[in-house]
Amino acid sequence: MNRRMVLYTLGILLDIEAVLMLLPAAVSFMFGELRTGAMFIVASGAAALIGTLQLFLCRKRNNTIYAKEGFVIVSLAWLAMTLFGALPFVFTGELGFVDAVFEIASGFTTTGASVIADLDRISRGLMFWRSFTHWIGGMGVLVLMMAILPSDTDGSVHILKAEMPGPTFGKLVPKLRKTASILYLIYVGITLTETIFLLCGGLNLYESLIYAFGTAGTGGFGLKGDSLTTYTPYVQWVITIFMVLFGVNFNLYYLALMGKIKSALKSRELWVYLGIILFSICVVGFHIRTLYTNFWDTARNSAFQVASIVTTTGYSTANFDAWNGVAKGMLFVLFFVGGCAGSTAGGIKISRLMLLGKTIRRDLRHMVHPHSVGVVKFEGKRVSDQTLNGVTSFFLLYCAIMAGVFLILSIFEPAVDVETNLTATMATLNNVGPGFGRVGPYLSYSFYSPFSKLALTLSMLFGRLEIYPLILLMSPSTWKRR
Amino acid sequence: MNRRMVLYTLGILLDIEAVLMLLPAAVSFMFGELRTGAMFIVASGAAALIGTLQLFLCRKRNNTIYAKEGFVIVSLAWLAMTLFGALPFVFTGELGFVDAVFEIASGFTTTGASVIADLDRISRGLMFWRSFTHWIGGMGVLVLMMAILPSDTDGSVHILKAEMPGPTFGKLVPKLRKTASILYLIYVGITLTETIFLLCGGLNLYESLIYAFGTAGTGGFGLKGDSLTTYTPYVQWVITIFMVLFGVNFNLYYLALMGKIKSALKSRELWVYLGIILFSICVVGFHIRTLYTNFWDTARNSAFQVASIVTTTGYSTANFDAWNGVAKGMLFVLFFVGGCAGSTAGGIKISRLMLLGKTIRRDLRHMVHPHSVGVVKFEGKRVSDQTLNGVTSFFLLYCAIMAGVFLILSIFEPAVDVETNLTATMATLNNVGPGFGRVGPYLSYSFYSPFSKLALTLSMLFGRLEIYPLILLMSPSTWKRR
Repeated sequence: MNRRMVLYTLGILLDIEAVLMLLPAAVSFMFGELRTGAMFIVASGAAALIGTLQLFLCRKRNNTIYAKEGFVIVSLAWLAMTLFGALPFVFTGELGFVDAVFEIASGFTTTGASVIADLDRISRGLMFWRSFTHWIGGMGVLVLMMAILPSDTDGSVHILKAEMPGPTFGKLVPKLRKTASILYLIYVGITLTETIFLLCGGLNLYESLIYAFGTAGTGGFGLKGDSLTTYTPYVQWVITIFMVLFGVNFNLYYLALMGKIKSALKSRELWVYLGIILFSICVVGFHIRTLYTNFWDTARNSAFQVASIVTTTGYSTANFDAWNGVAKGMLFVLFFVGGCAGSTAGGIKISRLMLLGKTIRRDLRHMVHPHSVGVVKFEGKRVSDQTLNGVTSFFLLYCAIMAGVFLILSIFEPAVDVETNLTATMATLNNVGPGFGRVGPYLSYSFYSPFSKLALTLSMLFGRLEIYPLILLMSPSTWKRR
Repeated sequence: MNRRMVLYTLGILLDIEAVLMLLPAAVSFMFGELRTGAMFIVASGAAALIGTLQLFLCRKRNNTIYAKEGFVIVSLAWLAMTLFGALPFVFTGELGFVDAVFEIASGFTTTGASVIADLDRISRGLMFWRSFTHWIGGMGVLVLMMAILPSDTDGSVHILKAEMPGPTFGKLVPKLRKTASILYLIYVGITLTETIFLLCGGLNLYESLIYAFGTAGTGGFGLKGDSLTTYTPYVQWVITIFMVLFGVNFNLYYLALMGKIKSALKSRELWVYLGIILFSICVVGFHIRTLYTNFWDTARNSAFQVASIVTTTGYSTANFDAWNGVAKGMLFVLFFVGGCAGSTAGGIKISRLMLLGKTIRRDLRHMVHPHSVGVVKFEGKRVSDQTLNGVTSFFLLYCAIMAGVFLILSIFEPAVDVETNLTATMATLNNVGPGFGRVGPYLSYSFYSPFSKLALTLSMLFGRLEIYPLILLMSPSTWKRR
């Protein structure tokens, strides 16, 4: 383990976070929240101090890292970012320590689950900061670091691999730094487009940015307890469409920008993604039709909720917890699906589910014809056995962690019903946000005990980092000297 | 596909079923239910006629079969047994066709889910028959065929492999027929012992047999709507202990009978099984302590419910649906566990879960040390990659089928809540029987639509036959001529 290099990278990240916190500080001052703004400056200073100290301590180092270091850097980075990101909430006294950690982890992991029962109590600077963490966490903070810093690390591909969601990692262009920059440019571009659309809908700049951040990161933090229920149909449709857009693999946008629209449209994952969304909208729409007076209201509410859950955003325009069994059951299944690989969405991801399906088919074929050679193809290319094994063992771990978190909640929350505990587990592990029952779309996670909140925080981080980095961080063999 | 041999074996099985139906016929006559008895004779005659016709048509045949035929025979056999087994209910008019199929499938698969809302309406002969199907289905009807008929089939090991639950199949003795006989002798022996214990508890012979059958097959059909709630603590303890005994791998009993008690006790699966049970009893007991006045009542109710769910029996001595979140959550997780491989219990099975855990550990080790050789050992022996892949793809299929059945229920049962639909899916796929909500322990599945009942029937068969036979039956490539 190259500890110096790990500490050095963490130092850079804390410095980046210190800079990022100046934006909410500015917002606070603009709204005249002087005390909040000052606390952001203090928190930013603390992060900058510790970060710079680390850079200084590790100025002599070996720049080469391997897969192991990649995983460790990513998991420690996310833990550190969460802890420092929580400080402004703690310093202003608006949230306790555990609540602040939960809220900011929920922000960075783009979950959108909140422990704040009454959002009006929170100052505007802090509201802006928690939405901004969605945007930072959506594309990944280490991807950002790659994009803005001249890369002097051998093996930094391991960092990107560990942070980017999806079963495989493909570089867009040979240079890693350029890949990261392109991804961020596309990300900024679509976010700005959405902001403009929202401004045209009559929202002010502050509101527009909050919702654009929440959509871009597929996060789900907003400004009101009933999410987007009271906004105009125009705003709801804009957000629906952008949620779907942010659930698409960003590589396809790059292909489209390069003029290769045809090869972008060849993506099987894209069509399966759109197919699932369309099918779900029809089924849900059919079963909620009696709740609305006309076709367009039904279509809008069905489309919004489906897009919100499948992309793991978690916004809502209706209390879907009160919907009938079919509509709820359909959403329940969508909790697991998630968007495409290489998007900002959480969940298992479409391509992983497709690979799991293909693995099952191969194994079945093998049972009937034991001498057949099982080649699995995806997007026209042969998939290696290593990738397939990786996908199945991801799925196994995913199930194990879900069972574990659910068991912990069950044991430490005797008063909470099974539906709530189960969907709270699913909503955090898949980075969706709201669930059913007491964690329904109009409610918050505030009633959970501090211990359970920490378990759910871990669940969110497991979901966003796709399990392996945290498991390897906790595994003793990672830290053994050899 | 050796179709003649498939048809011939099905013929034998229907003849066996015809003979087995004479027992409930006798019970009916003994209780003076002449019409029910007569209907059993008619149903038995129908099965015998069709069965013998098949034997006659296929008297010229090639006796060799392969894995494919093994799967097809097992799945068709279970479907045919279910259809003919349902006839007595239909002929007496006590149940409609779909209800009868559900009830008998629930019997043979040892699920114990019932569509009969009021058990007092049902004649005693039919009550006896549905419990007797638990006993037949528990050890497997094709195992029974092997045990009683002189084997003249090459490759009949494929039939046993396809019917016996668990990730691997080990012959006790070189001769297959002897293996089957030994298993059945142990099965009969323990069932008789339980019957005697129940008789000592003041139950009459009829009651004792009903509950011994229900325990032996880990089924769960009983005589009362509130299951075993009103029985004496003695009877409840006897059934608790025997449920646990029937969840143990029968190979261990054989080892013990051969005097190799030490090597039987070396089984890791056994200790994990007992450990899970003990741990769950403590957790559940702690959280239901306020419901009972003394320690022994708490212990008894906790132990009974835990043993019932983990062995997938489904008896109850309390309305566990009304328990608090922890106790319910604990049971929710136990739904999936199941007993040991080679027992009559359903679920995923302990050994499969252990192998899944070892697969995860191997893959994690491989991520940190890419050049390590990943050898997985179980019960002191090296496990082949083929077996491990088989276990993971079983688990994937298991999840896929669970999602599929849940989705079907969600779409076709708009009025039913998510908790009910979800636990109904789990309770049938794992062959447990009762779930939470509207399919709670004191309730029945009667409110579901006929279509949903058939979906749940299929789910039970998928669970009991461990998925592959039915999938291969439905796969076109099984039926292709080459």
